[in-house]
Amino acid sequence: MIKTDILIIGAGPTGLFAVFEAGLLQLKCHLIDALPQPGGQCAEIYPKKPIYDIPGFPEVLAGELVDNLMEQIKPFQPGFTLGERAETIEKLDDGSFIVTTNKGTKHQAPIVAIAGGLGSFEPRKPQLRNLSQFEDKGVVYMIREPEVFRDRKVIIAGGGDSALDWSIFLADVASEVTLVHRRNEFRGALDSVEKVQQLKNQGKINLITPAEVVDLKGTNKLEGVVIKKTDTSEEIALEVDNFIPLFGLSPKLGPIADWGLEIEKNAIKVDNTLDYQTNIPGIYAIGDVNTYPGKLKLILCGFHEATLMCQSAYQRIFPDKKYVMKYTTVGGVTGFDGSKKEAPKAVVKAID
Amino acid sequence: MIKTDILIIGAGPTGLFAVFEAGLLQLKCHLIDALPQPGGQCAEIYPKKPIYDIPGFPEVLAGELVDNLMEQIKPFQPGFTLGERAETIEKLDDGSFIVTTNKGTKHQAPIVAIAGGLGSFEPRKPQLRNLSQFEDKGVVYMIREPEVFRDRKVIIAGGGDSALDWSIFLADVASEVTLVHRRNEFRGALDSVEKVQQLKNQGKINLITPAEVVDLKGTNKLEGVVIKKTDTSEEIALEVDNFIPLFGLSPKLGPIADWGLEIEKNAIKVDNTLDYQTNIPGIYAIGDVNTYPGKLKLILCGFHEATLMCQSAYQRIFPDKKYVMKYTTVGGVTGFDGSKKEAPKAVVKAID
Ligand SMILES: Cc1cc2nc3c(=O)[nH]c(=O)nc-3n(C[C@H](O)[C@H](O)[C@H](O)COP(=O)(O)OP(=O)(O)OC[C@H]3O[C@@H](n4cnc5c(N)ncnc54)[C@H](O)[C@@H]3O)c2cc1C
Ligand SMILES: Cc1cc2nc3c(=O)[nH]c(=O)nc-3n(C[C@H](O)[C@H](O)[C@H](O)COP(=O)(O)OP(=O)(O)OC[C@H]3O[C@@H](n4cnc5c(N)ncnc54)[C@H](O)[C@@H]3O)c2cc1C
Repeated sequence: MIKTDILIIGAGPTGLFAVFEAGLLQLKCHLIDALPQPGGQCAEIYPKKPIYDIPGFPEVLAGELVDNLMEQIKPFQPGFTLGERAETIEKLDDGSFIVTTNKGTKHQAPIVAIAGGLGSFEPRKPQLRNLSQFEDKGVVYMIREPEVFRDRKVIIAGGGDSALDWSIFLADVASEVTLVHRRNEFRGALDSVEKVQQLKNQGKINLITPAEVVDLKGTNKLEGVVIKKTDTSEEIALEVDNFIPLFGLSPKLGPIADWGLEIEKNAIKVDNTLDYQTNIPGIYAIGDVNTYPGKLKLILCGFHEATLMCQSAYQRIFPDKKYVMKYTTVGGVTGFDGSKKEAPKAVVKAID
Repeated sequence: MIKTDILIIGAGPTGLFAVFEAGLLQLKCHLIDALPQPGGQCAEIYPKKPIYDIPGFPEVLAGELVDNLMEQIKPFQPGFTLGERAETIEKLDDGSFIVTTNKGTKHQAPIVAIAGGLGSFEPRKPQLRNLSQFEDKGVVYMIREPEVFRDRKVIIAGGGDSALDWSIFLADVASEVTLVHRRNEFRGALDSVEKVQQLKNQGKINLITPAEVVDLKGTNKLEGVVIKKTDTSEEIALEVDNFIPLFGLSPKLGPIADWGLEIEKNAIKVDNTLDYQTNIPGIYAIGDVNTYPGKLKLILCGFHEATLMCQSAYQRIFPDKKYVMKYTTVGGVTGFDGSKKEAPKAVVKAID
């Protein structure tokens, strides 16, 4: 059982910044995310694209913003359960909650902050009769640890940035990379498309287009695929260890929708007059996942909501303490790791 | 008469960021500030100190944050009326407002956003019988344009960072700099104190401590001061062109308190359930100047409030238009100066 003060569901920019604000109040956080990496939409959908409306950044790449947030929260040593979806919630007699993931990991906390964005990101899957039989037995939808593909034969399907970028990356890791796409045209960053062209010319990527994977082969684990050229209807059988369909992820509010929370427009209704709490005391919803009159699904709004939520959470956990806010500039930032950031103090010194 | 869409009173971080959010909605802004420079508390009180709780910045100097915001809003060409205090407001029959400053400058806009922080910064003045007689005639409380002191004899009074920093700066500009402080000890950044010591040793700053200016001399304009050594009671007469007492600024809600707005705890009550509007339709209050249940006087909260305020202002100005929000990453940022920032587009390209 993982125990913490604030259990945050969703490690997008909102959930990450909540760790910082909680840390200032000396509250510990643990984050659960269905994705293999923190950063939410910013990391998954557009890490290399610039955002222009983060206050104080005339321009910042979404991936950079995530890196900065990770650096900012480091002193507060958040825990992470990545690659797992928060599935069920249960309220104990002492008022605390237990959240269990689809892989059975259990987390307990007096406060749950749902920062689930548009929902947990779930892979779009190809229509193949025996797909589920090979899931986790050679079929992989999200790459957590590229080293598992070292010296293996992999086939990637897809025509967007993920398919291009992972083909490039794995060309140096896997023993054989085949890229299959149902068109000849790929859609992505110019340099990614050009790099794949170059690796293909060098024989490091095996390109089959226009084509689709139409069948999977194997007994206990994936051993091969059947590819069909869509122009000629020719079928090609290929021995592979892994099939990685990268057709994008789509967010689904999913199990959270069944937690007894008031839902409106596919989002969780919260009390924006005070603290972004849901209809269940002790459960908050912040960032893209919540809704209230005038709600804007913007990153900077999530930051504000996270901040007010943490104040309220503190009062729930310590009903008898009065928290007196100190500016970070004045009070500094004291990490759980013993680190201390502090403005240089003014000196009082005679001039003679 | 200066005309604009949103007239912003206060050019602190909140007012500055409002320019950006308004600009995304193609609304023009003009800012009034009592201080000679934009940036509010960040620029005036602690420009060289680090802030740790601006989301995405593990650490940023307050002055840097202001510079970044100025850079971010540049495409939207805001107007500035600096060094003037917004004094009176008047509502016209067409629903628009006219705001007049203490220097008589008039501004007209359908929307007024008060981002006045803790109030307009007013200098703390020394107790001298004939002080007011020489104001703007040699006595200066805030330095707007250091070049006006070129080749003049100036006396600076004070023992903090401003007194130290301006003594250092003007040592190269004025023909004579005298620094007077009622103690021997100065309080400021170590390198400022050391630099003053060094300039004093080189004869570039004339230091008189512990001492006070006790009288001003002159007929139509300031011609000299009388300084009293507080240890020996010795009096020194000095010929000077300018007397610059730098005893700090203190914020005063001031004239805005008489505009008919609901005031609570020295701040303006707003509707935080929707758009941070005050009890007078068309007048909003954002940032440190406002209050509502759970209000935190933090910079990041001002950013959020400014953003929601602009959406509401847009609806007031264009009641018949429906604004559809576009992410800056997707829609880019189109400046009023014809500039356009845009994410690089994905290409669609065949690989063969
Ligand atoms: C192309 C694009 C451009 C954009 N441009 C801008 C812009 O310019 N400015 C701007 O402000 N915003 C922009 N946005 C929106 C911005 O990315 C979102 O507002 C922001 O990511 C919301 O942050 P969040 O932390 O609330 O949620 P998200 O970033 O969506 O993160 C939520 C996380 O929660 C996880 N999750 C959800 N449910 C569960 C569960 N049950 N179990 C485990 N994990 C779960 C998800 O997997 C996800 O990682 C853009 C979005 C896109 C797609
Ligand atoms: C030492 C110190 C450290 C701080 N540290 C932090 C920190 O770590 N994190 C954080 O989030 N915040 C911090 N703050 C607070 C932060 O600076 C404020 O929250 C922020 O400046 C508020 O911004 P604002 O734009 O709302 O108002 P302000 O910055 O106060 O700006 C308001 C402006 O309005 C002007 N004005 C007011 N009335 C009038 C009028 N009638 N006419 C013309 N002009 C007028 C004023 O002159 C002023 O320039 C700190 C403050 C101080 C003093």
